[in-house]
Amino acid sequence: MTKPLRDCHVTVVGLGLMGASLCMDLSENNLCREVRGVALRTRVVLDAFFSGAVHLATDDLHTGILGADIVVLATPVRAIVDLLDEIAPLLWPGTLVMDMGSTKSQVCAAMERLPARLQPVGGHPMTGKETSGFTAAEPGLYRGATWVLTPLARTSPDALALAQELATAVGAKPVLMEPARHDRLVASISHLPYLLASALVDAVSQVGADDPAVWKLAAGGFRDTSRVAASNTKMFLDILMTNRQAVLEQLDTLDAHLDEIRRLLTEGDEEALWEKMEGSRGARMAWHERFNQ
Amino acid sequence: MTKPLRDCHVTVVGLGLMGASLCMDLSENNLCREVRGVALRTRVVLDAFFSGAVHLATDDLHTGILGADIVVLATPVRAIVDLLDEIAPLLWPGTLVMDMGSTKSQVCAAMERLPARLQPVGGHPMTGKETSGFTAAEPGLYRGATWVLTPLARTSPDALALAQELATAVGAKPVLMEPARHDRLVASISHLPYLLASALVDAVSQVGADDPAVWKLAAGGFRDTSRVAASNTKMFLDILMTNRQAVLEQLDTLDAHLDEIRRLLTEGDEEALWEKMEGSRGARMAWHERFNQ
Repeated sequence: MTKPLRDCHVTVVGLGLMGASLCMDLSENNLCREVRGVALRTRVVLDAFFSGAVHLATDDLHTGILGADIVVLATPVRAIVDLLDEIAPLLWPGTLVMDMGSTKSQVCAAMERLPARLQPVGGHPMTGKETSGFTAAEPGLYRGATWVLTPLARTSPDALALAQELATAVGAKPVLMEPARHDRLVASISHLPYLLASALVDAVSQVGADDPAVWKLAAGGFRDTSRVAASNTKMFLDILMTNRQAVLEQLDTLDAHLDEIRRLLTEGDEEALWEKMEGSRGARMAWHERFNQ
Repeated sequence: MTKPLRDCHVTVVGLGLMGASLCMDLSENNLCREVRGVALRTRVVLDAFFSGAVHLATDDLHTGILGADIVVLATPVRAIVDLLDEIAPLLWPGTLVMDMGSTKSQVCAAMERLPARLQPVGGHPMTGKETSGFTAAEPGLYRGATWVLTPLARTSPDALALAQELATAVGAKPVLMEPARHDRLVASISHLPYLLASALVDAVSQVGADDPAVWKLAAGGFRDTSRVAASNTKMFLDILMTNRQAVLEQLDTLDAHLDEIRRLLTEGDEEALWEKMEGSRGARMAWHERFNQ
């Protein structure tokens, strides 16, 4: 029988936007017995401790995870895969091992290799901003957000229930999903927007190299469409490298739509252009109304 | 000698987001002698009048513009071109004829054909939202915004000064520019983001047709990158059809960047991918810091 969340020692490894925001919610609302944070940099360790986000902060992974009931890995994806190997021998039997990585197939494959005594549950809260790091963290980040959980076949019902309790405790809505399905969907809804934003900034920069006035004319359209291009590069490099096939497929899909726009515009086919644009508009408005974001 | 703005009768034709917001600023702050609004739909005429946005509201163009010192055309671009022909015979000598159209080459070509007694000054305030129509209008929309003005060689210095006075009076920063240059720059900074957002919604919709859960996972990245896809379709169709060459060139530029991303990702060239993404991030952050948007 697993302990309820309020009796758990929780260790979060990686105190960036996601990890630190989780710590803040857990400690400010006394949702568990103890919150520990592990970070590489001394500056972050000190900030986390003195801000009260955690009860114990350390740059020593072993100290941080020893005796934890729940370990949440909140680093870029490929570091999560490495960390799983590193922490496995040190955890108590029954420890719930969660992560917050942005892609799930490789993480869950690594979780599958964990010793049988551990209870892995992959996860990905659908939140985040273009800002990153401890200084961008804030309480309430997960309120109302969808938190995808990707349990393994070996995961016990109790362990999954505890993972769901944690997600729900910080206001998120847990959704269970297969890792491959998650990765295919986020390639479309998250990784593609990032690459578009990045390519847009590059295209505008090319115009700006000849005529810098272009930056002065930039208003809300450019601001919003390009926003995620300012995301943490290391995080996104890990995402792209661990989800290449799905991302390439989405780039192809997008390319087909841009090609069609180019063709209709070249031919001056106003009616078809109207249909296409009005269709996108309707889909965007329907999403906005339904999910109110 | 032209009258100062405070002595002018100003008529705004088209009471959507841009036109109505201008009326509100002018009338609320008593910036001119009289504000008149012309709209096609009775609903909008009534809303404009009873909200106090204008002193006189009408659906009759002739009534609206008769005796105006300044006429501001605030409809979609191709309607502006038609309106210029229609109002020309009815305006007093010396009337300042402005517009707020999103592309300037065709509008300014039509302004060139106006009778010599009129004073045309093209313009485009760099603001706007994905919402549209009178109900989306708000006072203060132009505060801090760049307002591009495209005077013609025939425009008198007094007329240009009055146009600048109007832009400045509502808090905007007037910037003078050639129409073709404006159109090339906004193709990059405004029209390209719109087409990207629209294509992104289409790509996600294609995934959503098989697996509607994709919409549930959508968070801030999709929300912001796709926002302008909800823009008024008629407005953007006019924009695209009056700026085809520049938009097609920008689509080609963007395509080259997407192709490069696809190649680097296919080859797994992490170093080059990092360089490219980190470069876009730097450019986006530099713009954000400089223009604080």
